[in-house]
Formats: sequence, structure tokens, C-alpha cells
Amino acid sequence: MTPLHELTATGIVAAIHSGKTTAVAVAESFLAHIKLRELDVQAWNFLDPELVLQQAHALDKGGQHGPLQGVPVGIKDIIDTADMPTELGTAIHQGRRPTIDAACTALTRRAGGLIMGKTVTTEFANRFPGKTRNPHDASRTPGGSSSGSGAAVGAKMVPLAIGTQTTASTIRPASFCGCVGYVPTRGDIRTFGVMEAAASFDTIGLIARSVDDINLFRNVLIGTPPEALPEIALGEARIGLVRTGFWDQCDADTQNFIEEFAECLARYGARVNDVALPTAFDQIQDAHQWVSSFEFVRNRTFEIDHHWDAISPTLRGGRIKDGTECSFAQYGASREVLARCSLMLDDLFGNYDILLTPAVAGEAPIGLNSTGNASFSTIWTGLNVPALTLPLHRGPNGLPVGIQFISRRYADRTLLGYARAVERKFSIM
Amino acid sequence: MTPLHELTATGIVAAIHSGKTTAVAVAESFLAHIKLRELDVQAWNFLDPELVLQQAHALDKGGQHGPLQGVPVGIKDIIDTADMPTELGTAIHQGRRPTIDAACTALTRRAGGLIMGKTVTTEFANRFPGKTRNPHDASRTPGGSSSGSGAAVGAKMVPLAIGTQTTASTIRPASFCGCVGYVPTRGDIRTFGVMEAAASFDTIGLIARSVDDINLFRNVLIGTPPEALPEIALGEARIGLVRTGFWDQCDADTQNFIEEFAECLARYGARVNDVALPTAFDQIQDAHQWVSSFEFVRNRTFEIDHHWDAISPTLRGGRIKDGTECSFAQYGASREVLARCSLMLDDLFGNYDILLTPAVAGEAPIGLNSTGNASFSTIWTGLNVPALTLPLHRGPNGLPVGIQFISRRYADRTLLGYARAVERKFSIM
Repeated sequence: MTPLHELTATGIVAAIHSGKTTAVAVAESFLAHIKLRELDVQAWNFLDPELVLQQAHALDKGGQHGPLQGVPVGIKDIIDTADMPTELGTAIHQGRRPTIDAACTALTRRAGGLIMGKTVTTEFANRFPGKTRNPHDASRTPGGSSSGSGAAVGAKMVPLAIGTQTTASTIRPASFCGCVGYVPTRGDIRTFGVMEAAASFDTIGLIARSVDDINLFRNVLIGTPPEALPEIALGEARIGLVRTGFWDQCDADTQNFIEEFAECLARYGARVNDVALPTAFDQIQDAHQWVSSFEFVRNRTFEIDHHWDAISPTLRGGRIKDGTECSFAQYGASREVLARCSLMLDDLFGNYDILLTPAVAGEAPIGLNSTGNASFSTIWTGLNVPALTLPLHRGPNGLPVGIQFISRRYADRTLLGYARAVERKFSIM
Repeated sequence: MTPLHELTATGIVAAIHSGKTTAVAVAESFLAHIKLRELDVQAWNFLDPELVLQQAHALDKGGQHGPLQGVPVGIKDIIDTADMPTELGTAIHQGRRPTIDAACTALTRRAGGLIMGKTVTTEFANRFPGKTRNPHDASRTPGGSSSGSGAAVGAKMVPLAIGTQTTASTIRPASFCGCVGYVPTRGDIRTFGVMEAAASFDTIGLIARSVDDINLFRNVLIGTPPEALPEIALGEARIGLVRTGFWDQCDADTQNFIEEFAECLARYGARVNDVALPTAFDQIQDAHQWVSSFEFVRNRTFEIDHHWDAISPTLRGGRIKDGTECSFAQYGASREVLARCSLMLDDLFGNYDILLTPAVAGEAPIGLNSTGNASFSTIWTGLNVPALTLPLHRGPNGLPVGIQFISRRYADRTLLGYARAVERKFSIM
């Protein structure tokens, strides 16, 4: 029999609902597996096995059958939890205890989810890495900023984790850790109780091991009843292959795979075409950088004024410098760029259902002092469209490489439905 | 000599910068005036005179000359303060102490502002009123949800206060209390550390006694250097008189005043025309209600699940019921309505610089169990455009009635510039 910690969220819920197992048994299985793996992976900033078992006992006693009944969930440590610290990846907030749960934490609990612990984040969900290592090779980065969430799911320490994304902070770690990563249309899932990095882009991100699990969790966090995904055949989509202006930053191996994969979808009957993005899109990365930095630095006013010495040189010389130098006129002009490109992307989606594009340059790079190249997400996060990465490829070293799928705003169910069809046929995990 | 508590923020800063007074003297003057007025007005949820004087002494010692140097500021009690409780207008959060300042609080302090205390808010910035009374007639509502911020400025207990607006929560109390109230283009001022009611609409709102003070404070909270407003003559604008679909909810006295005022602006040379809003705009109030309720109820998941009995029947049977009943499809369709109307409003602003429209139905109504009619703000908040109310009229009982000015998104400086020209000629306060 499959060990419980190998089950997906959907599998766990089915097993508990049918009386085959209990929340306590599930929790114990995951805790035991975490004990085995955590020394290497370092995914957790806070994990109290007793608190986990208390929750599991309460769930079993409660007699409810929530849509996430008994599913262990990792929560990125910039998301408030009433019963655990929330430290934002910085010593400045060591021991900080929120008085209430973030909306997404509370909705997870309402659905019967079990909050396993707090996953490591980079400093203020920015670039300076935490302690986490890639679960598939401890010498490599797990990606960031939702480093612990990606690594915890990749290491099967939890089947689900919540991250966030302001640039590439969900898609990148999910891709490097061999997970499914999903960022919804911005605005669909509430961010109350989540540290604001840059509200123009901030979204909750979900990390899981299957698209069905993503769908299950998405409904819980939107706060709507469970709803199965539409069945979409591989041939039933108009696919646009988008190399983007960052294509030459991709490994040749990744480039080859994506091009072959596009041809493969065409063989299944999908209408696949190369998409040349409008030249205006070349401005998106800079615009995203200005807007996110302008907003970030103002959100961090308190820490900048009271704890300057405890902020990393990486953050001080990077985003804080950029955000301080950015004028309001530059900020406004950058927002204009994004608004204009957003309309162009709407037009483009008149001809495509799904865009196929790199999620990352390739395998997670060696070294723990950087979280990797974020360029492959800036266009999509900058334009607030939903994105999903699937583990479809192994790179030259046998490590997972995610491939990214994009849909228009509000077409999240189409995106997930198509991704599930792809997953069934092509997932490597 | 004018008592210090009668000065505007601009006046206080000038007096301190020129060495004519000190932050301590200013604070003492306001504290003395608060002592006189607070028993009647009840604007404050937290005010510790010692903490105020400590801040004032530190400011005088610091030798800085910030753009808000020594200016006492009231902060709505849904906005985090590191040194004062933040209770969100509910017993559920009694004694809640944030660990850090909200972005707007921290930016106020950085500019030399003095945080006077926390102003009363309705329950979770929704409809159920707090204890505050109208400073011009204690039998009347100050409006809501930024009740204490409006009343405190109206009673000259502080020259500046921060509120928020998700429906009418700044424009309405400012209008009822005889203040200048301003809501920026949504997104210009960060809301980190401010309780999220409904992020699709939430904005910081500013309440002051002059348009110049609003401009001063706006720059501080955007996080940009001070910048004087453009000089705009009364005749230099294309004005649209917008009666809205709620015109018949306006008192006849208010209707007459606005129509006469429009004629008056025309006599000064402004091109004034009646604007008939597109019929699609009739759907905005419902769309705003669905979207804000859908988001609000999810943001309050923790309190609903853990403190249901401590939530007022008004909130339970109103916004929580609406938000619970609203489907995701209804939420999506409502967002679509707003997006469509937003484009129509952009078109409309091709012909107008400023729209002139009611801010409230008339004088603050008698009674403290309601915060008054919010309809006159729903269109503008729903479409995320900047809005400003000026105290231009006295109603039949001699109480102030605000009149509202609207500009297109990002044209806030035009809005403020024109409002200042109007204020110089017509303000009643």
C-alpha cells in the first residue's frame, strides 16, 4: 500500500472521507517523512509536531468532512497564522505572532485542512535566500521566494503549500522542485493577512503535486464549493508558443524540449502557432521592476526607518535602492506601459486559448546564494494573468524542469483543465 | 493670535519651521482643545496624552524639518500603529497591538507627523456605527466608516486624519463634518497594514481642513517630495454636472445648491454641461455591492468562524449575508460590469476635466444608529477614480454639506488644483 505521505490531497481526502484512514494517521505519516528529509531540505521555519497532532485529533473528533479534510498544508512564512509565528523571512520579525489567521489560512482550516507549519521564505519575499535547499539536490537552490513551499511539496513533506508571487515566487520554486505551481488571475484569491510586497502584482500561489489538487485548493481559497475541472482534450486548444525576449537566457536543452513539446501537442491535434509578442512587451520587465520596487520600498517604511542594519545588503542595494530612486512619474509611466500591454494581451488571446512558454531557464542552478532567473514570469505577473507550471521535463542532470502555461485573465478553469490533460499524458513526476 | 489648534497643517509646519512655535506647544494646544470637545464628540478610540507629548518632545529634539513637522494626525483604527492598539471597531480585537506601523503611519512619522491617536471606526469599517457624534450637532451622525477621522478634523482636534474608503467611508464623513475629504486614484497610496475590507475598492482617504493640506499629506503618503499644486483658474475647466441615478435621493436644498453652483462656475467662464451617464452605470451600485461583499466576507473568515456571536446583527444580516450568497459567477460578472463602465468613464473624460456631483444627500441625518446614505460615492469608488468633497454649502439647519468633485484616474493633481480654486472662492469653513 502507498504510504500516506505519498498520497495527493485528493487521495487523502478520499481516504479520510471513506473511513480508510484518519487525519491523525495522515499527520503521523507526514511528520515521520519530514523527520527523514528536513535535515537535508530545511523547508520549515516553524513546525511543531505536537500542534500538528492536536489539530489532527480535533479534525478526527470534529466529524466534519471538509473538502480538504485532514490534508497537511504548508504556509509561506509571510502569511499570518494565529497559532504560529509569522516572521517574514527576517530577524526583524523574529517571534512575531499575528492575532488572527490570514484569509487563506482561515479558509484552509474551514475546509478541514491541517496547518503543518510555516515554510521558509526569502527575506521579505524578495531575493535574499533563506536556508532551504532543493529537495532533489541539496547543492542547488529550491528557487524563491516561496522556497520552503516548493521544497516541502517537492520532498513530499506536504501535498499542498501556499506561496505567493510578485515576480516569479511560485512558478520558479515549483518548477525547480518538480511540482505543479499555479498563480491565479490576480484578485481572485484574497490576500488579507499576507505581507504586501507590491499590491499591483501580489497574488497567492499554490504548489501541489497534481492539477486536480490545485483545483481543489483553488476553490477552497476562493471560498466557493468544490467544482470538477472541465474535460479538455489535448487537441482541443489553440496553443501559442511564446519564446519571449528572454529565450536566449534559456538552456538549449529547455529550448529544444519546449519546441519538441509544441510539435507533440500539434500531433495531438492542437492548433499550435508561434507567437511574436508585440514589441511594447519589451518594456514589461523594466515596468514591472519599477512598479514593484516603488511599492515595496514604501511598504517597508517601518523596517527601513527602524531596522536598517538588519536588512540584507542584497535587499538594500537592490529593490530598496530601485524603489527609492524611482520617481512617481516613472512609477506612473510604468503602470501605463503595463495597462497598454494588458490590452494587447487581451487582443492576442482572441487567437489563442493557452500560451506555452518557459517557466525557468532550466534545472535549478547550483548554489544557495541566489534563487535563480526570474525573467520568465515577469511578463505574466506584470499583466496579472493566471499561470501554471507543470513538471514535464528532466534536464541534463536528471533534475525537473517546469514548463509554463498561461491563459487570459479569468480563464483559470480552462488553464487548469488543459493542464490536467497535459499532465495525464506527459508529467514526469 | 490664532490659537495653535486653529491652524491648518500647512500653517503648523510653517510656524515650526520658522521657529515661531514647537511641536510640544502645538501638541499641548490640540490636547487642551480635545479635552474640551471629546466628551461631546467621542472621536477617539485611543488617545494617550503622555504618548503624544513624548512624540512632540522627540520631534523638537530631533532637529529635523519634515514636511509634516509637528502636525498632529488622527489615524483610523483599522490602520496599524506600532505604539497604540488597533482594534478594527470591534470587541473581537480589543487590545490588539500590531508589531509594526502600517505604511501610511510610518510615512507620516518619517515626515515629522505626530500620531495623535486612533480615531473611531464603524465595526470592521462597515455599517455598524461607533460612538462618535457629529461635531456640529451631537444628535447627528458624523457619517462612516471613518467617523472619528471626520469628526476629529471637523472639531479641530487634529488638522489631518487618515481614513479609508471602500464605499463612501471618507467622502461621507468629511462632508457631514464640514471637512475637505479626498480619495486618491486607487493604488497610488499603499494600504499595507490597513485592514483589507475589499481590495477591489479599498483606498486610503485623507481628511483635512484645506486642499493645500490634502496635497501636502498626499505627497507624504505617496512617498514623494512635496510639490505645490498647479494653479488652475475657475474658468479653466470643462465641468460636467452629474446628477446620477440617485439624484432623487438628494434633498431639494442640495439639488438647488449644486445646480446654482454649476451656473456660478459657468459665469466664471468654465464650460459647464449636464452629463447623462451611460445606462450601463445603473448597474454599478449592485456590482459594487456584490464585489465588496464577496471580498469582505472572505477576508473575515477567521472572525466569522471563531467570533460569530461578537459580530453585530447589522453586519451578519447585511454584508456577510450578501457576500455569502454571492456566487463566484456573480462576483465575476460584477467585476466585468465595473471594467466595462470604467472604459466608458475614460471615454466620457475625453470631454470633461472635472465632474461635479453630490457627495451626500444633504446635512448629516439625525440619529446615531446609521451613518447615512452612501449612494453618492458608489459609482466613483466602484470605478477607482479620485474624488474630493469640499464644504461649500450649509443646509436648512446650518450644518455643512459637502459637494463632490471627480477626475479621471491619475489626474489627482488636476482635481486638487481645481478644488483649491473653488475652495478659495466658495468654502464656507
